[in-house]
Amino acid sequence: MAVAMLLPAAIDLRDGSDDWLIFVRSSAATGALSALILLATQDHASRFTPRLGFLLTASLWLTAAFLGSIPLYFSHLPISYSTAFFEAMSGVTSTGATALTGLDDMQRGILLWRSLLCWIGGAGFIGLALLLLPSLRAGGLALFHMENSDKSEKILPRMNQIALGIISAYLTLTATCIISYFAAGMSTFDAINHGLTTVATAGYSTHDSSFAFYEGNKALLLIATVFMTLSALPFVLYIKAFMPQRTATLRDPQVKLFLTIIIVFSFMLAIVLRVRSHVPFGDALIAAAFHFVSVITTTGYTTEDYSLWGPPAIGIFFLACFLGGCAGSTSGGIKMNRLIILWNLTRANLARLIMPHAVIKIRYGSSEVSGDIAQNVLLYLFLYCASLIIGAVLLASLGLDFISAFTGALTALSNVGPGLGDTIGPVGNFSTIRDGALWVLSFLMLAGRLELVTIYILFTRVFWVR
Amino acid sequence: MAVAMLLPAAIDLRDGSDDWLIFVRSSAATGALSALILLATQDHASRFTPRLGFLLTASLWLTAAFLGSIPLYFSHLPISYSTAFFEAMSGVTSTGATALTGLDDMQRGILLWRSLLCWIGGAGFIGLALLLLPSLRAGGLALFHMENSDKSEKILPRMNQIALGIISAYLTLTATCIISYFAAGMSTFDAINHGLTTVATAGYSTHDSSFAFYEGNKALLLIATVFMTLSALPFVLYIKAFMPQRTATLRDPQVKLFLTIIIVFSFMLAIVLRVRSHVPFGDALIAAAFHFVSVITTTGYTTEDYSLWGPPAIGIFFLACFLGGCAGSTSGGIKMNRLIILWNLTRANLARLIMPHAVIKIRYGSSEVSGDIAQNVLLYLFLYCASLIIGAVLLASLGLDFISAFTGALTALSNVGPGLGDTIGPVGNFSTIRDGALWVLSFLMLAGRLELVTIYILFTRVFWVR
Repeated sequence: MAVAMLLPAAIDLRDGSDDWLIFVRSSAATGALSALILLATQDHASRFTPRLGFLLTASLWLTAAFLGSIPLYFSHLPISYSTAFFEAMSGVTSTGATALTGLDDMQRGILLWRSLLCWIGGAGFIGLALLLLPSLRAGGLALFHMENSDKSEKILPRMNQIALGIISAYLTLTATCIISYFAAGMSTFDAINHGLTTVATAGYSTHDSSFAFYEGNKALLLIATVFMTLSALPFVLYIKAFMPQRTATLRDPQVKLFLTIIIVFSFMLAIVLRVRSHVPFGDALIAAAFHFVSVITTTGYTTEDYSLWGPPAIGIFFLACFLGGCAGSTSGGIKMNRLIILWNLTRANLARLIMPHAVIKIRYGSSEVSGDIAQNVLLYLFLYCASLIIGAVLLASLGLDFISAFTGALTALSNVGPGLGDTIGPVGNFSTIRDGALWVLSFLMLAGRLELVTIYILFTRVFWVR
Repeated sequence: MAVAMLLPAAIDLRDGSDDWLIFVRSSAATGALSALILLATQDHASRFTPRLGFLLTASLWLTAAFLGSIPLYFSHLPISYSTAFFEAMSGVTSTGATALTGLDDMQRGILLWRSLLCWIGGAGFIGLALLLLPSLRAGGLALFHMENSDKSEKILPRMNQIALGIISAYLTLTATCIISYFAAGMSTFDAINHGLTTVATAGYSTHDSSFAFYEGNKALLLIATVFMTLSALPFVLYIKAFMPQRTATLRDPQVKLFLTIIIVFSFMLAIVLRVRSHVPFGDALIAAAFHFVSVITTTGYTTEDYSLWGPPAIGIFFLACFLGGCAGSTSGGIKMNRLIILWNLTRANLARLIMPHAVIKIRYGSSEVSGDIAQNVLLYLFLYCASLIIGAVLLASLGLDFISAFTGALTALSNVGPGLGDTIGPVGNFSTIRDGALWVLSFLMLAGRLELVTIYILFTRVFWVR
């Protein structure tokens, strides 16, 4: 982050904005803090325990949000600290919900910093999902751990090789996305920013009107749709692609389900849109796919207010907020792997009621799902629902209307970005939300991003007792 | 039901309404059907299997809704069959959502029949919950089975004694409630109807304006509050009270939790109301307790539009729709016993992430919760969430606005009655909802009432394959 802060400093210096000094100072402070932590811990090879893992994860994202908020708060933006923290948390959790307005006239340093926060957060989350969470058995991602250790075909033997694979894949995807945006007509600056936030499935834009700014440029919508989809696929696929011994990449059942859902619902939405607004079917399909993929991958780009497409469309977008992309990607939400396990678990449990003594195995693709993993997935679901309902009630208590409170909690928890309703809907933003509610939303974004258990475990007594 | 249909026939005959003949004919048809079923099955002592249990449960409620809808459809009411079926299903599932208007001027036979449907449905559900569901291991109610068989203290040894206990307790509660309403100033007819629908926690009224009709009569509100609460407590308590060897009645942890929630949230709502509308605190507390108890017990009586109490109040009522009363009562929703198990399960699972090798028992009161029951509760939660979300999406596809679609699915699934929003909110009703949506809501009411698994298991292949 200390290095990353020098990029907005450079662009602000070039643009003649005073904020460049803020970024340099923030960079120095961040660098100093990092150096101190390195010094304090270098002689102390700590044994890895689940406790350490959970604490590390939570403190990493909290610290990143805090450090990220510093240049925002001390910049020329006339915002409260709550807004700065919300904006930074929304960035590092790859949510992309913004509480800022006037993006089109904003210093470019700030805009780039927002995009970089998303990108760093996205890379961090893939690393977390593939390297740390499996050994913590947190959420449905424990599955990858099982796959890695159970199978003779080992994806990459050592941790730092996996990390290298993630970084290579992430960089390649980002670079390709930026070049594509540029080739299709975005300015260099816009292409870089949107490339960073597309691959992070975050959704921050450099324009208040998001992709509506490039009105009529269908190539950009198609590029965004393709790269959002690619970024919501399991990154293991791309790491595999870098390896000599290639395997069938579509064997993970979540990929098939994910692509099927995108195709089916995009067509449904296109029909709804065609019937309603009489645009040509091709245009309707592009708009439908762009917005559906934007929501299901938990990115959050928009070109228009899709809540005006009528109740059936609202229903589908509402559903998509829950679903999310594939595990092991930058997307949020419940995610495909959990949905598959929940479905198989439900079938098995219903069958068990009819045949109480039958031994019914729960499968995920070609692997068997252990009772532990099944319980973890169900636990996640409970924590998700409880967070959503209690989050909505808290936001309502802080004065938000019902739709804003409920879809606000949902969009934060699933790290999507836009909600529904007049305030925080597709063409709205979080700039009129009061400080108290911003903190609730920040908490929900953090909890949602870190697969819930990682945060809630910190509130149990057993975590802190020896 | 054949006998019950003679009561509205009698009152319509006395009032000079032609509909009395409809009720007599419906009664004859129902009686004939029952006689045929009895004849067809009397020589055939079928072995009880889970399959039979599930099929019996689902067909009982479906048949009851169908038979209940006959006199409504053939009466003088100008309604479609969808409306008649919705109204009857809302009755037998003790939901109390009405699609009829003009109740104040309606034939008294119809009004009494609606109330009787609720009352019969309520009695049936307690019987189902205490006698049949435990042996089907369906939902959290399996707990009572465990309690009965594990403990030396057996509540009542034989099934028909339990049934007798339920009927005695239910009749006593109903009679006391009716007499109390009458003593506090209701007309005889109103007292009977409201007594029937209070004890069934259903909420059908004989007036379009529900309890607002008795404006200013605080005694009635207090009586309703007390009897709704009593009806949402586990009926095992009352059966115990009829037995010589009494035991501590408050040992079931769900009773304590339920009463605590009612007291805490009633006070919170009273404060919200006091601040907002400057009514005396006593009046605010009565109104708050009446409406909160009405929603959490899934009854659904109202005196005013509590959604005007502001966002914090809406949040609390929204939450109450999920919670529900105690298991083994007439109330719906997720219910207290499941919430306690979910809470203990969450704590145990979080602790297990820190201490992977520890053996952590999940407790419910003084009993241990087996892995099977834990999985059933989590399965219920998944089915509940999936039904709610998909139900809301379906209702939206059929043209309902977001708030009506979401809270409509919620209120149907939890068997509450009123939702939120202008259409189906506290002072609204379902009369303007289109036929397609009424069928979706009818399905949700049925699934919610029968603890979800009982219905969804019928849609699995394994149920129908030998």
